[in-house]
Amino acid sequence: MTSAREKIARLMAAKRVAVVGASSDPTKLTGRPIAYMLQRGFKGEIIPINPSREEIQGLRAYPSLAPVDRPVDLALIGTAAAQVEPVIIEGVAAGVRSFVVLSSGFSEHDAEGARLQARLTDLARRHDVAIVGPNCLGVINAETGLIASFTTAMEENTLTPGGFGFASQSGALGAYWLDLVLQAGLGVSQWISTGNECDVDIAASIGMLVDDPLTRVIGAYVEDVKDGRAFRAALRDAARANKPVFVIKAGRSSAGAAAAASHTGAMAGEDRVYQACFDQYGAVRVASVTEMIDAAKLVLHDAVPADGRIGVLSVSGGAGVLLADAIESAGLGFPAFTPQTAEALSKTLPGYSKPHNPVDLTANVLANTEMFRKTLSVVSAAPELDACILFIGLMHSISDVLTGSILAARAASGRPFIVVWIGARPEIVAKLDAARIPVYADIPQAIAALAHACRARTRRARAVLAGDAPEGARSVSRSSTLTEWQSKARLREIGGVELPAGVMVRTDHDVAAAIAGLQGPFAAKLQSPAMPHKSEHGGVMLGLADAPAVTDAFRVLQRRGRDAGVDCEGVLIEQMVGFDIELIVGFRRDPVFGPMLMVGRGGVEVELDPDVAIGLLPLSAQEIEALLRSLRSARLFGGFRGRQPVDVGVIAQGLANIAARFLADPKLDEIEINPLVARGSNVVALDALMKIASPG
Amino acid sequence: MTSAREKIARLMAAKRVAVVGASSDPTKLTGRPIAYMLQRGFKGEIIPINPSREEIQGLRAYPSLAPVDRPVDLALIGTAAAQVEPVIIEGVAAGVRSFVVLSSGFSEHDAEGARLQARLTDLARRHDVAIVGPNCLGVINAETGLIASFTTAMEENTLTPGGFGFASQSGALGAYWLDLVLQAGLGVSQWISTGNECDVDIAASIGMLVDDPLTRVIGAYVEDVKDGRAFRAALRDAARANKPVFVIKAGRSSAGAAAAASHTGAMAGEDRVYQACFDQYGAVRVASVTEMIDAAKLVLHDAVPADGRIGVLSVSGGAGVLLADAIESAGLGFPAFTPQTAEALSKTLPGYSKPHNPVDLTANVLANTEMFRKTLSVVSAAPELDACILFIGLMHSISDVLTGSILAARAASGRPFIVVWIGARPEIVAKLDAARIPVYADIPQAIAALAHACRARTRRARAVLAGDAPEGARSVSRSSTLTEWQSKARLREIGGVELPAGVMVRTDHDVAAAIAGLQGPFAAKLQSPAMPHKSEHGGVMLGLADAPAVTDAFRVLQRRGRDAGVDCEGVLIEQMVGFDIELIVGFRRDPVFGPMLMVGRGGVEVELDPDVAIGLLPLSAQEIEALLRSLRSARLFGGFRGRQPVDVGVIAQGLANIAARFLADPKLDEIEINPLVARGSNVVALDALMKIASPG
Repeated sequence: MTSAREKIARLMAAKRVAVVGASSDPTKLTGRPIAYMLQRGFKGEIIPINPSREEIQGLRAYPSLAPVDRPVDLALIGTAAAQVEPVIIEGVAAGVRSFVVLSSGFSEHDAEGARLQARLTDLARRHDVAIVGPNCLGVINAETGLIASFTTAMEENTLTPGGFGFASQSGALGAYWLDLVLQAGLGVSQWISTGNECDVDIAASIGMLVDDPLTRVIGAYVEDVKDGRAFRAALRDAARANKPVFVIKAGRSSAGAAAAASHTGAMAGEDRVYQACFDQYGAVRVASVTEMIDAAKLVLHDAVPADGRIGVLSVSGGAGVLLADAIESAGLGFPAFTPQTAEALSKTLPGYSKPHNPVDLTANVLANTEMFRKTLSVVSAAPELDACILFIGLMHSISDVLTGSILAARAASGRPFIVVWIGARPEIVAKLDAARIPVYADIPQAIAALAHACRARTRRARAVLAGDAPEGARSVSRSSTLTEWQSKARLREIGGVELPAGVMVRTDHDVAAAIAGLQGPFAAKLQSPAMPHKSEHGGVMLGLADAPAVTDAFRVLQRRGRDAGVDCEGVLIEQMVGFDIELIVGFRRDPVFGPMLMVGRGGVEVELDPDVAIGLLPLSAQEIEALLRSLRSARLFGGFRGRQPVDVGVIAQGLANIAARFLADPKLDEIEINPLVARGSNVVALDALMKIASPG
Repeated sequence: MTSAREKIARLMAAKRVAVVGASSDPTKLTGRPIAYMLQRGFKGEIIPINPSREEIQGLRAYPSLAPVDRPVDLALIGTAAAQVEPVIIEGVAAGVRSFVVLSSGFSEHDAEGARLQARLTDLARRHDVAIVGPNCLGVINAETGLIASFTTAMEENTLTPGGFGFASQSGALGAYWLDLVLQAGLGVSQWISTGNECDVDIAASIGMLVDDPLTRVIGAYVEDVKDGRAFRAALRDAARANKPVFVIKAGRSSAGAAAAASHTGAMAGEDRVYQACFDQYGAVRVASVTEMIDAAKLVLHDAVPADGRIGVLSVSGGAGVLLADAIESAGLGFPAFTPQTAEALSKTLPGYSKPHNPVDLTANVLANTEMFRKTLSVVSAAPELDACILFIGLMHSISDVLTGSILAARAASGRPFIVVWIGARPEIVAKLDAARIPVYADIPQAIAALAHACRARTRRARAVLAGDAPEGARSVSRSSTLTEWQSKARLREIGGVELPAGVMVRTDHDVAAAIAGLQGPFAAKLQSPAMPHKSEHGGVMLGLADAPAVTDAFRVLQRRGRDAGVDCEGVLIEQMVGFDIELIVGFRRDPVFGPMLMVGRGGVEVELDPDVAIGLLPLSAQEIEALLRSLRSARLFGGFRGRQPVDVGVIAQGLANIAARFLADPKLDEIEINPLVARGSNVVALDALMKIASPG
């Protein structure tokens, strides 16, 4: 079997393309791809297939794939849905290995369509061929001029080859991307609209862009990932290849998730688990195509500051302040100038302008463009900076001089220059762009782009080291819940965290003897598989001083169990444990991404304002420690109000131990430790609940 | 004395304008305003003043203001800084009441410039005249064509009159605003750059825009407010006049605040107090000029949804999902369709598209524009909605048909329509804009604009009721700190909150007798004016069971006081108080906005992630309750983990009582209650600290 990524790479490289159901009308779905490729000079051969025409758009047409006397690399199919399967069967027989199905009327339509689509999936698997779609906008390879797509974005735009690739689960978003990227003057490498994904999916498409040598930046529009394992591998490989991935992920809100489910027909996974996947595997989420392009431009122009330390030069003091605000809010570096830089600046700036970052050039620039040039050369050489943002507004009368100075300074320093120019003339933007100096129309756009691009860079370090995603990601089909006592027994056997000293008591005669070796105060907890959340049902009594108190509590709890009509296995009596920090910990199997760990702050804050971090397994102790330290409340680990610090390393090591077992044992469906408490290096699971796979 | 707002209104209405230091060169600072006004047909008279020319740009010139034989309304001054004062004196003598000083070289320059500027302030006060500037870009009245400004934004733009007014503490930001607003096709009412504000300030300028009948929306760029009282009044009046105010406030971050201080020379007040002022007085903060224009467009086009309930129609399912995400994240209303609407939609939509909000029109629109028209008419009449967002991308071939349907539906329903059209042609945008249908280039811009405009509407209700800002806003010059015991005595006298039962003990012999009437456990707290934050210095001992324990504690604390070298007045012994909720409360006098109240969550969370709300006095009990309920942790008031709810009304009423006293007594410089604790309707000041004005 060829790998999914190799299959698509072969498809994208197609040189001889048959268009099945080809139309003579260049405005029709199956006429457009031919017209587009003829206009743009596709570096290959187009073979129209149409039983009723001898010639289509000036090309010789064939009645079907079989009679074509040369090997066809790719069949682009735009027939009625019912005809797609026979066409692919004929194509496979004729040696065609790649198919793009534009036709709709499949799973997006009705149950019959879904059945038709399942047969296409089967064909792809059986014959080891690639099928993109159905119900997609197709694919584009800008390098060869392959436009196996009817997207209206190709009606007028020039297809400029370049380093920006895109994979989209929405045809429309793909079209907007194509239009906006080409309008922005950026070049495209490969473009793919995955449609219903009967075979080629978003993960394999991203993987293809990773493997494609011409692609430098990857964009993706994602609604639901079908193969979480391949998706994680594709993102990790992108990080290893140093190709930033910018993702638009729909369905963040509950309204959006409902709309996405209605749109795609699939129940997408939890958005926060997707977010965890992006964070862990180095992908950066953006809100719109425009934001994506703004960020990608920095990468394509090699204008991402190495360590994010930014100096600002502004012709307006006010704009300088707004830039400082925006840079600090975005978490980028905004260093003070060294005394050397400040001294050099004080020689170039007007006397009343202070040599601080941001530099206020003042409107004096209009009268003294030489001051601009000199100041720019000082700042662009300052060793405390990685990049320079220039703010300019209007100033049309001197825009050529300013542009000249910027180009010269950029060439001399080799540093990234980013220009924010309000009201800039298009020809000035084009000139700077041609010299690979990105220009933005206002401050927020520029800083958002910088923040996204810098985030892609910093996340990469972690992503390249990420482990292989495990097999068998899916949740078990049926599971049963263990009682706390049973769960803790398993947890003790796994090891990693301590458990309170305790005994399981089944009759009230046993109490005094059973707790003889323990020290009060005690907690008493009803144990019943039918009551997993026992404290909500009065199944927990705390602060019991001695044996008589415990015995009374035992009877009260038994009565409560009887009243609630649940089967009571007994009462767990435990020594109470003092602690400084309260966490919640959950291991579960996400339907998309498989085994994962959730850690969060425990206590009353959970309900108020959840403070939670999620990681996909496998995770090392180091990675788990980083997750814990990423909590908003992480400062509490360092001690507060006179309490001693807790040992986060011990917590992380314990959880890593449980994680390894959870990963290795697919019968463990879920582990919840709530709370996991800590004082110093003492880490105790106060309560625990496990779900295990039911046999059969 | 004429009010500051009336003075500016008179200035803006000027019909006869003298330009002092007028230049024949239309590109020079004092040549530009003349050239601009001549080009745009100023509906008034321009009188150049220049001792060495008889004629300037075709107009008869005068050697100075005195010989002009007709009353001059406004003198625009662009001479050297040293000449400005004599020119104003001459103008005042000649009956001129309004001046705009473009010249720089004043407080922004050096100490001598600051002295010159102080003399201008004195002139303005003494002669009851208005002076805008110095060091400003001037003023523009689009209605009359008055362009008393050299801004390069007027080089090429047509000065379209309209409803959008702007006041700016940065000339450059003012110029960008002017350029972008005019480029966006929106009309301008009045425009003012306040420069160094020797007389006319940002507050009075906003007030002028409130009073101006042509202004419908107010924009402002603010760095530092000098007259907080007038600023609050101007914002409240804007709310009462139903004119939304959108503010760019620089200096949000610490880097930005430092840059602003360096830029304006003034230490601006705390950004969070500014934010509280905006919130309370109905102004909405935006991040950029672009964002401001996007929001203002909705108001100017009467396209702000009354209750923010939005329906979405999208030609792309993916874009519909992204819109749903954005709408929900922005806190706007996104209702489900009623069964009636859904049924009507199911008749217009293709069978496979579900009649849900957002409506997915699918690419079918390209083949079936009639479906678009019908669906639009259903959604635009749905009673569960206030507005409709249409999402379109590209579709150039049918853009005229779509536009026609939108215009017809808008006319028929009278509802706001907002269009997001990716890659729209400029002529289509212009056509929709002319019909007052705002068009945005991508989703985030549209939703940010809607969120800002709806926020302006919802905040208005509160702002119109805001009380007059108090006189004597400033902090007292010198103050001394009272001990807890003294502070609590004052607080008891003011009333409003309870205080723990306690006694002040001065020698260890007194202890047993003193606490005879009290119940343990006790707290013992060292009282010394030199140790206001006593718990940090070991000056507090808690949980003392009985008289011997308290006596021991007394001795320990006295020794600690001696060791720390502070004067000890005694030890406060108090009954300890149980509580469920812990708050911090502060009353202080902000240097800009005067007396204010800060309430926040107390306890360890304060240090971790402050949860604080600020209100400017006066505040009613109702307003204070709203402040308390605006805390992120407000849900805790309702009870948590089995604890009973606390009575927020009682807390608010108590704080309102203290607030009234704080407002009435300027000698009270600061009151801090930390913590203020509550259980049920019991509200107790556990600790308190006051600063009072020192005599003299």
